[in-house]
Amino acid sequence: MTVETYPVTPRNRVKRMHERASYDRESVHAILDAAMLCHVAYVIDGQPYATPTLFWRRRDTLYWHGSSASRMLRHLKAGTPACLTVAHLDGLVLARSGFNHSANYRSAMCFGMARLVEDGEEKAEAMRDVVDRFYPGRSTLLRPITPQEAKATTIIAMPIEEAVAKVRAKGVGDDEEDFALPIWAGVIPVTTVLGAAQTCHRLVEGVEKPETLSIFPEGGRLDAALLAGQGIYEEA
Amino acid sequence: MTVETYPVTPRNRVKRMHERASYDRESVHAILDAAMLCHVAYVIDGQPYATPTLFWRRRDTLYWHGSSASRMLRHLKAGTPACLTVAHLDGLVLARSGFNHSANYRSAMCFGMARLVEDGEEKAEAMRDVVDRFYPGRSTLLRPITPQEAKATTIIAMPIEEAVAKVRAKGVGDDEEDFALPIWAGVIPVTTVLGAAQTCHRLVEGVEKPETLSIFPEGGRLDAALLAGQGIYEEA
Repeated sequence: MTVETYPVTPRNRVKRMHERASYDRESVHAILDAAMLCHVAYVIDGQPYATPTLFWRRRDTLYWHGSSASRMLRHLKAGTPACLTVAHLDGLVLARSGFNHSANYRSAMCFGMARLVEDGEEKAEAMRDVVDRFYPGRSTLLRPITPQEAKATTIIAMPIEEAVAKVRAKGVGDDEEDFALPIWAGVIPVTTVLGAAQTCHRLVEGVEKPETLSIFPEGGRLDAALLAGQGIYEEA
Repeated sequence: MTVETYPVTPRNRVKRMHERASYDRESVHAILDAAMLCHVAYVIDGQPYATPTLFWRRRDTLYWHGSSASRMLRHLKAGTPACLTVAHLDGLVLARSGFNHSANYRSAMCFGMARLVEDGEEKAEAMRDVVDRFYPGRSTLLRPITPQEAKATTIIAMPIEEAVAKVRAKGVGDDEEDFALPIWAGVIPVTTVLGAAQTCHRLVEGVEKPETLSIFPEGGRLDAALLAGQGIYEEA
């Protein structure tokens, strides 16, 4: 049985603008899966760090690797509390009062214990997943990972214990009496889009871009491409 | 005298890929000022939180308000250690090995003690700045902030004690012997862009969009618009 809603506790319960919050897996996963970049918060000796990093989701576990590893390493053997957050900025909301200025966004905060992936098979799988989750099927096209590379890679896993999604997706929310003021108000949409692929200038002649990369079309939205990639990855 | 480089300590020194790091104010500020959304990390009872929020910079102090406030409030009276991070994703880097897959990005991490803005004048100024920093001169066009709104607004300030910028902005970094492999490799650029402004459907007839919003042109880059806005804000 899959739990459809994350438990709500003092840790993840939204206090401000709680009408924007939801705790169901589907809402949280849709926001996570539309992103490549997250911020992980962790604590070392009382000092909090917000580290930006690439991440991916496999069922109810989040994985990341790279820059946060070196600093965290000594804390990860036993497991350390962490918070992984994704936020998409979708629009600037200009109201008729300063107070009602806002932003449209989709965010997801996930809580759990982060631990080092040490098991050989789980780590090998994760090293394929970090490629295939973003670029479906690509790991099979690449030269194999070497033992030295595996050794030099740190992968962190965090099963999601609690999570919350928070979304604002609407127009200007002015006070009723302010709508009559002669002040321009509106929403300026924001999207993150893909440019034209820049082929490596040292590419072997005649090598074509694989068809699987067509989920990243020039001018397309990054979030849509990543959602599509997650779907293919989950079905594979 | 303005210090041109932030001190380098164990807290902000980059250990992994240290060649991508810089500690000068100009590099850090350029990354901060190109963003509207940051992630603030803080700790409550040993649990880290990464909270996405809008923020702005006034000289060497960062300000934010909103969603993190309610949970943090009791910790902010005395000041609490925080880390404010901005990350821009600029490109997906597809290499010929899994290990050399990467991303182009610009990130800035700032460390300091976050404190509640309680002083009346500092708070009034910050409530204007949160509008004017993003939309130059806009606060003068709006109806004034009410005492109730000021009371309901929590603003947090964090003087930057230490900071670091980290940037990757280049092509595929494959191992020398891998360039000969018949595998497609390249960079897919990513940009965050502005859409056409959606005027509030309850706008008073005849009200025009102010000229100052021309820094947000349809199809323009959000980071460029925000940098331009910061420049105007600093000169005002």
